[in-house]
Amino acid sequence: MSQRRGISFASVNDMVIRRTATVLLLITFLAGVRGGRVHAEEGMWTFDHPPLGQLREKYGFTPGAEWLEHLQLASVRFNDGGSGSFVSPHGLVITNHHVAAGQLQKLSTAQKDYVANGFFAPNESEELKCPDLELNVLVSSEDVTARVQAAVTAGASDAAALEARKKAIAAIERESFAATGLRSDVVSLYQSSEYWLYRYKVYTDVRLVFAPEQSIAFFGGDPDNFTYPRYDVDIALFRVYENNRPIVSRDYLKWSPTGARDGDLVFVSGHPGSTDRLDTIAQLETERDLVYPLSIDVITRRLGVLRQYAAQGAEEARQATELTFGLENALKAYRGEYQGLRDPQLLAKKQEEERGLRAQVAANPAWSAAYGGAWEAIEAAERTRRSLYKTSRFQQLRGSDLAALATSLVRYVEERGKPDAERLDGYHDAQLPALELRLFSPAPSYPSLDEKLLADALQESLDALGPDDPFVAAMLKHRAPADVARDAIRGTHLVDPSVRRMLAASGTAGLHSSADPLVVLAREADRFTRANEKTLDERVNSIETRAGEQIGQARFAIFGHTAYPDATFTLRLSYGQVKGYPLNGTIAPSRTTLYGLYDRAYAFDLKPPFAPPRRFLDHRDALDLTTPMNFVTTNDIIGGNSGSPVVNRAGEFVGIVFDGNIESLAGRFVYSEERNRTVAVHSAVIIEVLRKLYDADSLVAELIGS
Amino acid sequence: MSQRRGISFASVNDMVIRRTATVLLLITFLAGVRGGRVHAEEGMWTFDHPPLGQLREKYGFTPGAEWLEHLQLASVRFNDGGSGSFVSPHGLVITNHHVAAGQLQKLSTAQKDYVANGFFAPNESEELKCPDLELNVLVSSEDVTARVQAAVTAGASDAAALEARKKAIAAIERESFAATGLRSDVVSLYQSSEYWLYRYKVYTDVRLVFAPEQSIAFFGGDPDNFTYPRYDVDIALFRVYENNRPIVSRDYLKWSPTGARDGDLVFVSGHPGSTDRLDTIAQLETERDLVYPLSIDVITRRLGVLRQYAAQGAEEARQATELTFGLENALKAYRGEYQGLRDPQLLAKKQEEERGLRAQVAANPAWSAAYGGAWEAIEAAERTRRSLYKTSRFQQLRGSDLAALATSLVRYVEERGKPDAERLDGYHDAQLPALELRLFSPAPSYPSLDEKLLADALQESLDALGPDDPFVAAMLKHRAPADVARDAIRGTHLVDPSVRRMLAASGTAGLHSSADPLVVLAREADRFTRANEKTLDERVNSIETRAGEQIGQARFAIFGHTAYPDATFTLRLSYGQVKGYPLNGTIAPSRTTLYGLYDRAYAFDLKPPFAPPRRFLDHRDALDLTTPMNFVTTNDIIGGNSGSPVVNRAGEFVGIVFDGNIESLAGRFVYSEERNRTVAVHSAVIIEVLRKLYDADSLVAELIGS
Repeated sequence: MSQRRGISFASVNDMVIRRTATVLLLITFLAGVRGGRVHAEEGMWTFDHPPLGQLREKYGFTPGAEWLEHLQLASVRFNDGGSGSFVSPHGLVITNHHVAAGQLQKLSTAQKDYVANGFFAPNESEELKCPDLELNVLVSSEDVTARVQAAVTAGASDAAALEARKKAIAAIERESFAATGLRSDVVSLYQSSEYWLYRYKVYTDVRLVFAPEQSIAFFGGDPDNFTYPRYDVDIALFRVYENNRPIVSRDYLKWSPTGARDGDLVFVSGHPGSTDRLDTIAQLETERDLVYPLSIDVITRRLGVLRQYAAQGAEEARQATELTFGLENALKAYRGEYQGLRDPQLLAKKQEEERGLRAQVAANPAWSAAYGGAWEAIEAAERTRRSLYKTSRFQQLRGSDLAALATSLVRYVEERGKPDAERLDGYHDAQLPALELRLFSPAPSYPSLDEKLLADALQESLDALGPDDPFVAAMLKHRAPADVARDAIRGTHLVDPSVRRMLAASGTAGLHSSADPLVVLAREADRFTRANEKTLDERVNSIETRAGEQIGQARFAIFGHTAYPDATFTLRLSYGQVKGYPLNGTIAPSRTTLYGLYDRAYAFDLKPPFAPPRRFLDHRDALDLTTPMNFVTTNDIIGGNSGSPVVNRAGEFVGIVFDGNIESLAGRFVYSEERNRTVAVHSAVIIEVLRKLYDADSLVAELIGS
Repeated sequence: MSQRRGISFASVNDMVIRRTATVLLLITFLAGVRGGRVHAEEGMWTFDHPPLGQLREKYGFTPGAEWLEHLQLASVRFNDGGSGSFVSPHGLVITNHHVAAGQLQKLSTAQKDYVANGFFAPNESEELKCPDLELNVLVSSEDVTARVQAAVTAGASDAAALEARKKAIAAIERESFAATGLRSDVVSLYQSSEYWLYRYKVYTDVRLVFAPEQSIAFFGGDPDNFTYPRYDVDIALFRVYENNRPIVSRDYLKWSPTGARDGDLVFVSGHPGSTDRLDTIAQLETERDLVYPLSIDVITRRLGVLRQYAAQGAEEARQATELTFGLENALKAYRGEYQGLRDPQLLAKKQEEERGLRAQVAANPAWSAAYGGAWEAIEAAERTRRSLYKTSRFQQLRGSDLAALATSLVRYVEERGKPDAERLDGYHDAQLPALELRLFSPAPSYPSLDEKLLADALQESLDALGPDDPFVAAMLKHRAPADVARDAIRGTHLVDPSVRRMLAASGTAGLHSSADPLVVLAREADRFTRANEKTLDERVNSIETRAGEQIGQARFAIFGHTAYPDATFTLRLSYGQVKGYPLNGTIAPSRTTLYGLYDRAYAFDLKPPFAPPRRFLDHRDALDLTTPMNFVTTNDIIGGNSGSPVVNRAGEFVGIVFDGNIESLAGRFVYSEERNRTVAVHSAVIIEVLRKLYDADSLVAELIGS
């Protein structure tokens, strides 16, 4: 699964460029334009605007308000990049092992490797508190477009308009947070044509209950990732606490007695990260020609460093595990998306759509006047983006978790010194709790690994920009990247969260006088990053925000409000069918069984990543091997949906999303019902293995409610 | 497996156009030109000219003369379109169920369906004699190029030269047959640059010993055909008799105790039917633009008739089984090949090769004078072929087995009335035994089915050529195709083999006075077919034979004798490795296990074609499910190789070829080591199921030699 937002902060910082949103900062100003025609099962719909017509027509099903609200409140956002759902009245939340992996890694030590070996707390007292996991439950949403747009004065420049919108958004969020105490995010939808205020209940006392071994959660490893047929038990269970007691989760999903069956209508409720379906051709071409090839190079390079580090020993390998997964996952997703972008048919389809839309706009004088210039404005802005791209990408402190923490810390202090309305997005008062959770997290650091990664990223900036580039000169001061990284990482005290807290509390004066070498480096680097971001805002983003809004409005004018917005890591509903598909000359079945796990394991002589845990071999005879294991549906999802529940008409839990097939990767740009598939763990296999291999009868009882 | 030559005579008659050779008449005059560079595992090598250099270099293995001779003599050609091998000293021959299917169908009745239900003779007295199966074992081969070429007088026209070569070939075959009593075929290799006399030991008393149910031999059916991973036990066992006793087969393959293992060097010894790797671009373009689209239409149409017929009842379905398989198999192969031909990259590669070869020829004055005109000559001939194509294809009596028998009978009588040297190829004295075996076979006919098929083919000719076409007019005489077919099939007595014998014995006078309506139709149709064949020979084939020979010689001059000829359904050796491959985003393992059979079966709810036989469900616990089931190798094969043994360095039987993956279909034109795979049944699963599910211990003992 392209859990793009699930990869660690450092790597996101490293990888996500155009999509400037990070895991924590989800308001994007760069969505695309709305497609005219929505195909059968296409769409990641907001709960405000579910596809009732399509559901009635194709399936004769009309979810009531109560059905929708229940599902919404049972859905959970994992703020470090995935989705989940409540599955018991006692705060039990299910997600994927690979969504949980960040916390599993942070909970692990050289002595206890929960990523590899899993974990099970047979009773509440043994549950493990996660160091910095924030869960969100969407409790309300409200259209605030009018207020945001009213902030823009007539005749304002694009840059001033962008500034004004940002300020209005921050004010709305601030007020809402103050009034309700709920996390309050304004989200821009439909290519900035609409702004919605989403309020979330936030949970930060989240405890690990169960995770299987990675060798069964991620059986097949990187080769099988983004493919089907699959044989994975990619799940993990957490329990949400408040006041040191499990919460009462009234809205939880009942466990289906049968699970998903071939042909069933099913729903996925989760948090797709981002899609580019509404991008203009000019934007897609920048992605294709610049962003993807360069990103693939960066990740490939960083993976080389990680593998070298991991080869040094067992502990090094353990430290590298989760980031390696994240980068391999991102690389495979990027490659699939890049291949989609280079497919002439895909681009031709997109071009045809755009030509059609532009022709309709051109044919109507009023529309032409209001929206006609938008595409050319974006083309011009994209030319600017291309010219700025390399500099803005490589003039950043990248690669290392500690360096990313230092950068956040520098900004945290700088921004807190300003009035709330003046701050960078992500540093408003209402946003600080989430940031602080991460900033002061007790999660372990791996300085030796960080040093290698930072050295590599600095070397890369040097390679890309040359020694005379002012950023490179400022970072290296004529020294070798490896030396700069060594001094910064070995010399920093930021590994200690209490030091970070002290520095944060010391204010701008303290920050500016800090001699911590990593802080010094981050402070210096941030000057460049801020300048580059400002330039991008003024010369690209502000123009594209306005133009995107025009295109979005043109679509509303022509097609009506019949579509869904690009994904923004906010709650969405998708519908589809449990259904096989044409695969490599034959047909893929809609589900796999436990038999298939053993087939693939023995076919590869039990060699990793095809070696299931020992317990699967020792107690094989206890299992009913006909038990459904994974299944595929036509639901429209993308990275961020990992861990989303799959529910049936009755709203029961029938499975959990953990991947998309390889054909779904082009889904970032265009959905294909014929071959695009969501891959999920079947509810039946979860019960089967919990019961027969993990002796987790109490957990099973809680899940199935008996 | 594209067992193109394995589909029944009627359908071959129907489908194979350009490749005029039928199963029985294997001398092709239309092979292509030799590729310059041979890729790693590429090649279907003659036993005279094995790839010793490549084997030594890559695998450090040098098969000795004895090793090669043993393998050659253990290899068996199934003359109705497949391959096999001796696997015991008592004449036991193994092949595929789908190669045996023709005979299984002919042995079956409304009461006993051996295709569907299989067969096992626990002792010799219960073995079933096949009605018209001819097996061949290649015992010697000899280069006769000089003699064939000497027959062409200097300055002869292309047409006269072709005629002269045919006469010389017939004489060589006649003499050899008279001298040795062995089947003697002259085969043209390397695009008619070489002619070889192959002598075969012929066996016609062949008895069925064992066949499993089709539901396990062809588990996954048409969807899984030409794909991998697979889970099939596609085998059948026959025993060869002479003088009513099993022969002593000294050269048989010993059963390997381990079977094929990942990474092993393995060999396939069998009879690939035909490839077009050496075709010129002009020839490929005719295939792409004319032959493939039209053939796909014809097969699709005929399959419609078959399915309609089969839907009438169980007995109708039984009658249609084998032909349906043959046509579905051909259709899937054609579609895969057609897709390959339309792949711009494939054609670009071919064009580049051809350009390179032509440039090298052009750069050398002597070569340029001798060979330089060949490509343009073929281009011109192909223009003629295109202009004649539709007429020559549809001016034939097609579609029905009985009509095909009638056509053969007409020709048999006509040709036998001439001196041997004057006859059409396929009707020389030396060739008559094979023809008579089929002509007078006691195998059952299905007149009701034949009537439908003949009606459809006649309707098709009418649709394609119009009512005024002389052939159509002669066939229909202003009547409806269905009426003509009804009268011909219901009125004919050819269903009775003794009637066919009498007619054959009655000579041309008897033939010409026969009032049997099918004979009348065939007699009439044959006038057109003969005229069209003559025109094609004179205006196309003779030119391309000469030009092909020139291109072949140019290749020898430039590259030396380092390559292998296009396939001609004669014995070839290919080498390769047991090896997985990149598949749809992940990797396919080099083998599957019995676990996978059950995975796929239950994933499809045991619905056909994913329902294994009852015994596989009832006695599942008896099986070791880790047993290797199917495996893939990099060996270069094509249709006709079905049933070929896979042997290891020790020359032991480790498996049996039954398919190629979907990526291998473009292998008709170009070999790709990365993705082209041979699919085989593992020797271990054969023993496992014979022993545990079929109670065939005596057979197992004979196979493993204990």
